[in-house]
Amino acid sequence: MKNKQKQVQLRDVQDVIDIIGGRWRGAILASLCDKEKRFNELKRDLGSITPRTLTKELKYLEMNKLVCREVEASSAVSVLYSLTKHGKSLEPLIGQIVAWGQKHRKIVLD
Amino acid sequence: MKNKQKQVQLRDVQDVIDIIGGRWRGAILASLCDKEKRFNELKRDLGSITPRTLTKELKYLEMNKLVCREVEASSAVSVLYSLTKHGKSLEPLIGQIVAWGQKHRKIVLD
Repeated sequence: MKNKQKQVQLRDVQDVIDIIGGRWRGAILASLCDKEKRFNELKRDLGSITPRTLTKELKYLEMNKLVCREVEASSAVSVLYSLTKHGKSLEPLIGQIVAWGQKHRKIVLD
Repeated sequence: MKNKQKQVQLRDVQDVIDIIGGRWRGAILASLCDKEKRFNELKRDLGSITPRTLTKELKYLEMNKLVCREVEASSAVSVLYSLTKHGKSLEPLIGQIVAWGQKHRKIVLD
């Protein structure tokens, strides 16, 4: 593979890791792989995340067309977060990340 | 899925993204997916990385049992870096990251 082609490929890896990276974004996407969730449901899944950080990361994922934010027309204002079609295309990758993570934990802890 | 189980799964996602994350680690692993490489070959693939950062990230990947460092018994001291068996188990995941990255670029640029 020519060096130019290789550099484009490596840049793709960096871009994707930037999108799903950081401490929380991958975990937010993995949480939404189950089903659409309210803010507090996401917060409960993620444990120690602050509301401010969760809001900021959800906005980032929306900007990258991975998460959709929907205001529910009910008595109290309620917002639902879900994966977009494009966000759902990450599910196999996130599934592989989870599987590899479990294997890695065993190897590193041995 | 119970919340406890979900939190373990999300922590796995965070751990893996921590290992392959940052600006360079995923790209270093992807570069080594081709073949074993010398320091300068890696540096040429990665473009703007500094020698100091490349050294630091390679040590981190070695510590996580993903990369192996071998000193070649030849006249001039020459060091070869390669993926360990465990490191090679990342190849399908990195392949999916590259493929998803190419698709994502088209969607975000449209």
